[in-house]
Amino acid sequence: MHTVIGVMGGGLASAGVLADATRIGRLVAENGWVLLNGGRDAGVMAASARGASEAGGLVLGVLPGDDWECIAPHVDVPVLTGMGDARNAINVLSSRVVIALPGGAGTLSEVALALKSGRPVVTVNFPLGEVFDFYRRSGQLVEVRTPEEAIEQVQRFLG
Amino acid sequence: MHTVIGVMGGGLASAGVLADATRIGRLVAENGWVLLNGGRDAGVMAASARGASEAGGLVLGVLPGDDWECIAPHVDVPVLTGMGDARNAINVLSSRVVIALPGGAGTLSEVALALKSGRPVVTVNFPLGEVFDFYRRSGQLVEVRTPEEAIEQVQRFLG
Amino acid sequence: MHTVIGVMGGGLASAGVLADATRIGRLVAENGWVLLNGGRDAGVMAASARGASEAGGLVLGVLPGDDWECIAPHVDVPVLTGMGDARNAINVLSSRVVIALPGGAGTLSEVALALKSGRPVVTVNFPLGEVFDFYRRSGQLVEVRTPEEAIEQVQRFLG
Amino acid sequence: MHTVIGVMGGGLASAGVLADATRIGRLVAENGWVLLNGGRDAGVMAASARGASEAGGLVLGVLPGDDWECIAPHVDVPVLTGMGDARNAINVLSSRVVIALPGGAGTLSEVALALKSGRPVVTVNFPLGEVFDFYRRSGQLVEVRTPEEAIEQVQRFLG
Repeated sequence: MHTVIGVMGGGLASAGVLADATRIGRLVAENGWVLLNGGRDAGVMAASARGASEAGGLVLGVLPGDDWECIAPHVDVPVLTGMGDARNAINVLSSRVVIALPGGAGTLSEVALALKSGRPVVTVNFPLGEVFDFYRRSGQLVEVRTPEEAIEQVQRFLG
Repeated sequence: MHTVIGVMGGGLASAGVLADATRIGRLVAENGWVLLNGGRDAGVMAASARGASEAGGLVLGVLPGDDWECIAPHVDVPVLTGMGDARNAINVLSSRVVIALPGGAGTLSEVALALKSGRPVVTVNFPLGEVFDFYRRSGQLVEVRTPEEAIEQVQRFLG
Repeated sequence: MHTVIGVMGGGLASAGVLADATRIGRLVAENGWVLLNGGRDAGVMAASARGASEAGGLVLGVLPGDDWECIAPHVDVPVLTGMGDARNAINVLSSRVVIALPGGAGTLSEVALALKSGRPVVTVNFPLGEVFDFYRRSGQLVEVRTPEEAIEQVQRFLG
Repeated sequence: MHTVIGVMGGGLASAGVLADATRIGRLVAENGWVLLNGGRDAGVMAASARGASEAGGLVLGVLPGDDWECIAPHVDVPVLTGMGDARNAINVLSSRVVIALPGGAGTLSEVALALKSGRPVVTVNFPLGEVFDFYRRSGQLVEVRTPEEAIEQVQRFLG
């Protein structure tokens, strides 16, 4: 069974965030893990899929829609849920560890759902503030600055 | 068709939060709205259900489980989803306005999913920090201190 | 807590089926049960909602969409799932007993999901054939001809 | 993007059905398609996964649970939905064509949900009876006797 790592982040993202997403995708693939993301042809989803795919990795896209439209070109295996944002719960349950890049409410919901479901979360340049202190202190939530540090944390969580 | 107002918050909560939840439940009922919450017999769910029920209101509980166990005693109509935290997406979609009391990752996921889905959110003594600034500035997220202020904001959003 | 009875059936239906749906809705309300259906403004959903509402009952509509469009006029409390046909699983889990009137694949999926989830199913003039024999023999599936017989079976299942 | 073919069928199955499931898994893989099934370590799920895996194919298991227990040993990529039978809707939406082997209510729900969602369905030695005539006549539902015939039908549907 493959180890699945989730990479979450905004459908709209800055150039720096997109570069980080692509780099993280590459590193996920180089570690032999399957990359899971939200699958849409936008922002962190498209960029992380491209990074993983170009490094020879497998990309699983768990989509909100019910057809094969608007899927990021580097998604290898699309899972069509037809359930909108409720699919965010599936994204995080299916991930051994969730890496979160900056995003809006969708990404924040994935961070929160991951923490609720007991999945470790590593954020990259995405300061979440005091409201997440409980999970920071328990060690379930770790905040880092670079893709390389994020991968180190994933490796540590996978033990 | 009834107006449905969601009340979210922790399954574990302080006495002050529970008192606020009960008071908000009562005010929701007195305004003629249906109260929707997560339906479990715990914390803000049980307290807000009791407040609404004792004021003669209708309480809809949208539950994570698939049986009639552990439902708050004042839930009138239980909806069993059998989908764990993915039901949080249903809670907020079904609410015209979401009131959020302090809670953990589950409550934070509901706040985030509500904002993602375009539902107005009113928090009561639940400071969310800078990561939610975008929604605060747009007016979709409003933070207040008392049950009465929360209801005023709901009335304003219902317009 | 109210007893919730699900009434399923086609979005397109004959005059006879619609008359049965309306009659069943009325009888559900007269027995003091809450009527749950798929909530759309079509076929058996709209007809059963009308029957229950006109008899003073409460109607819960569990909808596939994520907004307040196309809801049957007699739905009192709409639950917006935003998850398309996956909401069929919620419809049947939330029902103590499921009554099924003739319909297409959507209704058949609800019958099958109800049986899978251990919910009793009463069909009205909806012959399902040999493929459902296992559930007929076990007593979980009962087939009748009239709304009155359906209600008798519901009463028996509720014990 | 890979072509995903769903293979559904009972968690309990006869030796003949299990042999068909294994053979179909093998043929799916030999055609270069990804096999999707319900992922549990039982019946048609485990058998079809084994057939595909032994032929070098990729197996995606979409599971009802929220942890990594009870997954069929030949599943390569598990998707954990945590939503019980509601995941059946995801199974069929994600499949370009659904192949259904004999099963109980769970399998019947997948056939019905697939037809409702516009996905072609090929059954193998699984006579569904008159209640599905509409879909048989429209050509969306095809019934065959052997794994080889099933694969021919899939090829035809894929065009």
